[in-house]
Amino acid sequence: MNKVAATGKAWQEEELTALAIQAFRGLGLPPQDAADVARILVVADLFGLSTHGLSRIESYGERLQLGGINACANVTVESPAPALRMVDGDNGVGPLVGMHALRAAMDAASQCGVGVALARGSNHFGPISPYSLIAAQHGYASIIGSNATTTIAPWGGSDARLGNSPLGFGVPNPGGKPFLLDMAMSVVARAKIRNAFKRGEPIPDGWATDAQGRPTKDPGVALDGFLLPIGGHKGYGLALLVDLFAGLLSNAAYLTRVKSWVDAPDEPQNLGHFFILIDTRRLGSVDWLTERMRDFAAILHDSPAADAQRPVIVPGEIELDKMARQRESGIVLEDTVVALLHEHAARAPK
Amino acid sequence: MNKVAATGKAWQEEELTALAIQAFRGLGLPPQDAADVARILVVADLFGLSTHGLSRIESYGERLQLGGINACANVTVESPAPALRMVDGDNGVGPLVGMHALRAAMDAASQCGVGVALARGSNHFGPISPYSLIAAQHGYASIIGSNATTTIAPWGGSDARLGNSPLGFGVPNPGGKPFLLDMAMSVVARAKIRNAFKRGEPIPDGWATDAQGRPTKDPGVALDGFLLPIGGHKGYGLALLVDLFAGLLSNAAYLTRVKSWVDAPDEPQNLGHFFILIDTRRLGSVDWLTERMRDFAAILHDSPAADAQRPVIVPGEIELDKMARQRESGIVLEDTVVALLHEHAARAPK
Repeated sequence: MNKVAATGKAWQEEELTALAIQAFRGLGLPPQDAADVARILVVADLFGLSTHGLSRIESYGERLQLGGINACANVTVESPAPALRMVDGDNGVGPLVGMHALRAAMDAASQCGVGVALARGSNHFGPISPYSLIAAQHGYASIIGSNATTTIAPWGGSDARLGNSPLGFGVPNPGGKPFLLDMAMSVVARAKIRNAFKRGEPIPDGWATDAQGRPTKDPGVALDGFLLPIGGHKGYGLALLVDLFAGLLSNAAYLTRVKSWVDAPDEPQNLGHFFILIDTRRLGSVDWLTERMRDFAAILHDSPAADAQRPVIVPGEIELDKMARQRESGIVLEDTVVALLHEHAARAPK
Repeated sequence: MNKVAATGKAWQEEELTALAIQAFRGLGLPPQDAADVARILVVADLFGLSTHGLSRIESYGERLQLGGINACANVTVESPAPALRMVDGDNGVGPLVGMHALRAAMDAASQCGVGVALARGSNHFGPISPYSLIAAQHGYASIIGSNATTTIAPWGGSDARLGNSPLGFGVPNPGGKPFLLDMAMSVVARAKIRNAFKRGEPIPDGWATDAQGRPTKDPGVALDGFLLPIGGHKGYGLALLVDLFAGLLSNAAYLTRVKSWVDAPDEPQNLGHFFILIDTRRLGSVDWLTERMRDFAAILHDSPAADAQRPVIVPGEIELDKMARQRESGIVLEDTVVALLHEHAARAPK
């Protein structure tokens, strides 16, 4: 649990979205572009993914003000083949580029049954699960990935040469909750190592290495070293898969060619994303999919829990339950985030 | 290292392929179908993946003879949308169905830039990397997966409800070796736990659970329990992703609906596979891809090795190097495999 000040009001989704749109308009985005960005970040907060939600107004805002991100990006889409869309983000805000790519992939998939959008010239695009949710709500199964600033060493290597690239998927479930998975390639997030360091506790084998790429259980040493990918060489390979499809094939930057938004906030990152969508309505009827998804989830839920307090769940349940609860009770944001939203919103054109 | 009798000759690829074709003809397959199956299994052996190569003649042969696999399968392909192919394997030998699905996906991708084939009515289709290699040789980047007999418990569950489903990818590299990754979802193969048991050594945390789904370091207890997926809930999610695309969306069986070829060798498994292909020639010129792939590999190779004896490699290098060496020196198979191939080949029609 983060200990942060969140003393303010519980926001309703519509009200928070309106404020977020004004904040991004205050940072120079046209209304429709601000709405795209707000949509992804508000869903992230609804899912409980607060590190990837409106708190990003801080880094996105800094970079927009420094000119590191283009507030008036002219995102363009080319179609080199019927099912393929190449998206040039023109260094726009990541979720704006992501939404253009998602719409392009949905358009291609509606025509061809399958659609792939490859985006370049982008920036951090938020979490993946909001895109997977939108795709699922429109009937598309999705595999989505993005590359990222380098923080992981190649397997057996000793310096940061690949990103902790996120990979996600979604499958529509007309009769219930869609399946949504959104994962990075490291065993744990860096925050877990920081927490162990604060508590003075060792970390388990397999979480991280020292700065020379050697295994360590010392959280202090690990913080100067590298996160380890899941399954060792397997996670290394998966991270490369994501970068090859999101970065190399999209004509974006990849590996160490991706600029760090921390070290160079005023420069374009040229991040890349991929969106692979399949139109499930071409595969069978809604009843067919409803029954199969119900059966699939039931088989998993019916596995007796190893710990009776923790029943088996399917990917996405936690986030979708949280969304439902927060749509009832409202979303409470950190005070600093609300203050920043208001500060930028105050500059929005009337 | 497996200690098995392999005292025989070093086979040249052509000669071994001819014998394998005769063996599958002896098991009742038409010549062209036997050639498809032999092609995948011989490449598996060339890659050094002997557990997924011609040694499979034993289980495939038993099931063909029992009628559990259909020797005269009529594999059919439907196209519900321009980029989509639904393949009905008619309970044929897995690599036969896999080759039909791969060709269908290449056909769709050549027309639409992207092609997806979803196969049902199949069986164990060998390793993934031979399919990824063929796709890469034809210019297609690929993501390929298959579901499998259940051997893994859901995350937090306590009985086998999902398969250790393989997932693979490939990216063409016109100037060098393609990138090929082929991985299952468990941290380690069951054989590694068996080896620890034989040596009387404990296994590391995170490899396996007991039969109640609780963590164990005891290899004997683990052999009665379940393999753990990479990254815990992340590998669980990835295994579900593969089964949703390979099994559920393809209209094949999924999870516990997949029949075990060990427990019921005489029954159809109704396994499913997915093939997602992107035509890289629609993305840029051959020179463009050559230069980017060279640069991508160089960035990884140039990371100083944590252990000087083990330089950084990229996925597929080990297998492709082994293939090159065995194409020079020949392939040595286990004696029992050669004997079985000869036994079945003796019954082939003249």
